[in-house]
Amino acid sequence: MSSTPVPADGSVNRQWRLAARPKGLPVATDWAFQTEPAPEPADGQFLVRVLYISLDPAMRGWMNDGRSYVPPVGIGEVMRAGGVGRVVTSRHDAFKVGDHVSGIFGVQDLALSDGRGVTRLAAGTAPLPHHLSVLGMPGMTAYFGLLEVGRPVAGQTVVVSAAAGAVGQLVGQIAKIKGCRVVGIAGGPEKCRFIVDELGFDAAVDYKSEDVRAALRDHCPDRVDVYFDNVGGEILDAVLTRLARHARIVICGSISQYNNEGPARGPANYMALLVDRARMEGFVVFDYADRYADAAQEMAGWIAEGRLKSLEDVVPGLERFPETLLKLYSGENFGKLILSVADPAT
Amino acid sequence: MSSTPVPADGSVNRQWRLAARPKGLPVATDWAFQTEPAPEPADGQFLVRVLYISLDPAMRGWMNDGRSYVPPVGIGEVMRAGGVGRVVTSRHDAFKVGDHVSGIFGVQDLALSDGRGVTRLAAGTAPLPHHLSVLGMPGMTAYFGLLEVGRPVAGQTVVVSAAAGAVGQLVGQIAKIKGCRVVGIAGGPEKCRFIVDELGFDAAVDYKSEDVRAALRDHCPDRVDVYFDNVGGEILDAVLTRLARHARIVICGSISQYNNEGPARGPANYMALLVDRARMEGFVVFDYADRYADAAQEMAGWIAEGRLKSLEDVVPGLERFPETLLKLYSGENFGKLILSVADPAT
Repeated sequence: MSSTPVPADGSVNRQWRLAARPKGLPVATDWAFQTEPAPEPADGQFLVRVLYISLDPAMRGWMNDGRSYVPPVGIGEVMRAGGVGRVVTSRHDAFKVGDHVSGIFGVQDLALSDGRGVTRLAAGTAPLPHHLSVLGMPGMTAYFGLLEVGRPVAGQTVVVSAAAGAVGQLVGQIAKIKGCRVVGIAGGPEKCRFIVDELGFDAAVDYKSEDVRAALRDHCPDRVDVYFDNVGGEILDAVLTRLARHARIVICGSISQYNNEGPARGPANYMALLVDRARMEGFVVFDYADRYADAAQEMAGWIAEGRLKSLEDVVPGLERFPETLLKLYSGENFGKLILSVADPAT
Repeated sequence: MSSTPVPADGSVNRQWRLAARPKGLPVATDWAFQTEPAPEPADGQFLVRVLYISLDPAMRGWMNDGRSYVPPVGIGEVMRAGGVGRVVTSRHDAFKVGDHVSGIFGVQDLALSDGRGVTRLAAGTAPLPHHLSVLGMPGMTAYFGLLEVGRPVAGQTVVVSAAAGAVGQLVGQIAKIKGCRVVGIAGGPEKCRFIVDELGFDAAVDYKSEDVRAALRDHCPDRVDVYFDNVGGEILDAVLTRLARHARIVICGSISQYNNEGPARGPANYMALLVDRARMEGFVVFDYADRYADAAQEMAGWIAEGRLKSLEDVVPGLERFPETLLKLYSGENFGKLILSVADPAT
């Protein structure tokens, strides 16, 4: 934390606020870095020191105006982000000083909360970053998207894009646990080696050096029963040429399109849905909130058994938020991208 | 039939064969008009005089090389087409001279058959063209596509494009029978008046003169639960902006794209599937073949009760096949387009 310009000692609250709506990739002038006095909890509130902040591809969408599954972040507002933190002051009956919590705390050092949407984390059950990864939103997204929307059956072929990313790494491993053949699409030899050698995928396609259509022909001899799509664009079009009959395409994201200034690129090969009697379906993980606890418990079990791994890429320094976020869109990040904001021991 | 250059007296068999694979809209040199001697049935075969030929948007796809739900028509082969005819010679136990039959007889006067894929039509139950329309493939397509893939629920809003076409006119009426609010998208005031005044749709959108997005906002206050898409392109993109949560888009065709020389245009707004937790699903009517008879019986009942109408656009003259087919792609045709080939009384 040596590069932090303001000591995160609790006396001040550093914040990243949205200054302008980006066109294309967010640039420096889209953000404002501000320092405010530490807020004081009112009755029924508590103050959270944020320890880890989740950086998610979806954040780019939250910066746009327009109808989506959540309202846009307003100009001048603290940027929305999920996080894990520790309660440092409390005037709330259910949250005590020292409790570890997860919630939507924003890109800042300190967050006031009334407890709504905040989960208390059982002490010592898992490394804190896991709660933003396999036991948090990426985990829930992989679990419910794959199992409820994709509905893979043992013996079927599952393909996932952004396969070394926060969600993709889990989708592939859960599909393996369910007895599927799993092919991951990722960028570069290091990621491809990781998903096969470390995570146990059956094969990897390096979209940066391979012809994805040809590679899918090689690696999916029985075609593709479930495609979990995180990227959209050309890769979605390539997979559409390789669907099995009654295939399910799970639309989780379209990261290749988030920073387009023009209209998004639609899947030109979508008529494969007709030829292959297939389905393309979107979902929003929040709809499964009442089942998160069960899913987290099942995934924690798989972790304990050594069947599920979660790679996290933890970058230190709240002040590095804007540049770190861009790693998601350049294909640089590997595993779940997390910003660490304060030493968990402080 | 005054313009027929060769008398259809049974002595010869006029045929339209595929001469070349079209680029874009089929042109004259893509076809060869040939006259052959009338074929003689072998043992186990019968000869059908074709009376009516079904002209379908899907024919354009059958002319392309490449993988689809049926093999392409080969260069030099008689163009594939559904038809209704009468058995004129028979050496087959189950088909007698004088029987009316439907099947894939091709674009020709006379077709040999061994009975596979041929249905004998009960005498006098319906006008013969109905067997290529409401009681034939368009009827089956509307019935199974809407009810099995779209799964409309009474009170929901159903939108259909090409709403005055062979399939669209039936989709809207079946949705009304099922208690839905129905909005049709069609080209021009005449078609729009027809679907509302004659077929009982709740509203029509004239895509040639109206802003489709704005019109859907007006006519679908509760958004769109089921969209039955026959056209693709801009209209599909417009409907995607107006989906209700858990909407179903039935992919039946993409007639706006069939004659594109470049790649098809994909639905740029497909991420609405995520925001609205919606699904886009294709189907091929042949998969429901074992239920055609039940569907036809139910639709015949609706016709008898005056609840279902079927408009047919019958154009006379086998020799006019190439130019008549083009009506499907110019938006000119109205109702189910059928070529009449011979006088049913001959």
